[in-house]
Amino acid sequence: MKHNIAISVGDLNGVGIEIALKAHTEVSKLCNPIYCINKYMLNQAATHLNTNIPKNLKISSVDGNFDIKAGALSSESANYSFDSFMHGVCLCKNKQADAIVTMPINKEAWMLAGLEYKGHTDALTKHFKKDAIMMLGCDKMFVALYTEHTALKNVPPLIKKDKLLSFFIDLNKSLPNEKIAVLGLNPHAGDNGVLGDEEIEITNAIKEINKSIGEDLFFGPIVPDIAFTPNFRKNYKYFLAMYHDQGLAPLKALYFDESINISLNLPIVRTSVDHGTAFDIAYKNKANTLSYINAVKSALFLL
Amino acid sequence: MKHNIAISVGDLNGVGIEIALKAHTEVSKLCNPIYCINKYMLNQAATHLNTNIPKNLKISSVDGNFDIKAGALSSESANYSFDSFMHGVCLCKNKQADAIVTMPINKEAWMLAGLEYKGHTDALTKHFKKDAIMMLGCDKMFVALYTEHTALKNVPPLIKKDKLLSFFIDLNKSLPNEKIAVLGLNPHAGDNGVLGDEEIEITNAIKEINKSIGEDLFFGPIVPDIAFTPNFRKNYKYFLAMYHDQGLAPLKALYFDESINISLNLPIVRTSVDHGTAFDIAYKNKANTLSYINAVKSALFLL
Repeated sequence: MKHNIAISVGDLNGVGIEIALKAHTEVSKLCNPIYCINKYMLNQAATHLNTNIPKNLKISSVDGNFDIKAGALSSESANYSFDSFMHGVCLCKNKQADAIVTMPINKEAWMLAGLEYKGHTDALTKHFKKDAIMMLGCDKMFVALYTEHTALKNVPPLIKKDKLLSFFIDLNKSLPNEKIAVLGLNPHAGDNGVLGDEEIEITNAIKEINKSIGEDLFFGPIVPDIAFTPNFRKNYKYFLAMYHDQGLAPLKALYFDESINISLNLPIVRTSVDHGTAFDIAYKNKANTLSYINAVKSALFLL
Repeated sequence: MKHNIAISVGDLNGVGIEIALKAHTEVSKLCNPIYCINKYMLNQAATHLNTNIPKNLKISSVDGNFDIKAGALSSESANYSFDSFMHGVCLCKNKQADAIVTMPINKEAWMLAGLEYKGHTDALTKHFKKDAIMMLGCDKMFVALYTEHTALKNVPPLIKKDKLLSFFIDLNKSLPNEKIAVLGLNPHAGDNGVLGDEEIEITNAIKEINKSIGEDLFFGPIVPDIAFTPNFRKNYKYFLAMYHDQGLAPLKALYFDESINISLNLPIVRTSVDHGTAFDIAYKNKANTLSYINAVKSALFLL
């Protein structure tokens, strides 16, 4: 029996719907995709893409209509992407879907629309009142993020032992028995205090989590610019970065097309493509489906 | 006529001298290396390495003697590494050498020894009273650093238009006619202010430098986790990172063994290996010579 996977369509002015339609045949072999979009919007997108809608395509209708404008920042499109997403989440909660795979939304458009969330993960955290953990990667390496969409200047004050420990506990529950390489915050992981001292908090949190789980599964703080070197990567598959670009710049340098985004520590399974709305190539038949297909596969793997 | 290249030996408790001796024959084909070390210390290192000193090896003697202890943090070794370095710099200033290639020093050991510099680049900046620019990379990509050995919390306040502009002017003088991809500071380069606003300073500095040089050579602010993706790298060879790990984590993920370190904006040519003292493998015949040989080649290329 194939699993039902809700697909939220993302910002319809971006590449999401093109990828979904392009990959439909392949994805249908893996699962039963349920697209969270109404007929009117789907037809409009297909017309823009100059493509036909496959006959067996199943939708779960999401109200709303507006004119799709390829690559345009729009609050209407933002609101629709949010509604499609929450619709998919509800399908999971009601057991009509087993998991949700999300297409990219545009954060700037969400802000324009007055949506108070910084992205999918933030919205899930608030909806479920649980701290969702954002993890990106592919089968070669995964990077979880301790802080996500946080301005860089606001990151150092968040490096505190108790907060780290509570995050480590959640991460360990989501990835039991996995070794985690925990990065330092500062260049050279602070060089023993010469270049910053937040590593003391990280060290203490690592000691405590390892003691509490009775096993040394958390390692670090690792020197950030050494963590992703080929030799170091041989020993670890899971990394914990202290902030967004510390983890994602190396990940995307190495595995851009194939990476996906997973939300851990939630009551539902959610995976996502690891790219944005790519407004510059929307509706130009240029979008790559690999990350989406990997996201579907990962969702199935997690079920 | 082959160029004379001063080689500072770095921290003698680390891997530098092993690499220098191991690569001597190959490096001698490219240039005349002049090793900044005295006979006593060289003999001691060779004994530890269980190797013979090549007959044609030329030294320029640096006073001092202490017992080499593989992998040990030591203020004696720190002081000797500093003296070897400054000796090589003087050889360049006196035209006895055309350039200097430096082996790694240990920053923690320098601090232990009361040496007030954060590393070679910082010492050169203070010695020449010119702001040395640290650039790392290989022929596939180079990353210059706007801030270097700075605790992360101290980076955001340094992102100011006038300071950036003066850095851009120096960088442009060192790399005339080269396109530079300038990274943003925040996740998604701030997402138009949603995730931090330092990108406004970067944008304004870019506008001003391009206007003053009469050509669009500086591009950005680039989204940091997109800058090093394979597609983006096709268009740029030179990147400017706002801080140490933003540039070096992706660089080392991609090109760890072959990368080197170049000091720009100085009266002398200085290149260096792109790794540390690697105390854990010192005197174990495990060190890789590729970065060193590339550093020698780059120094010759810059002459």
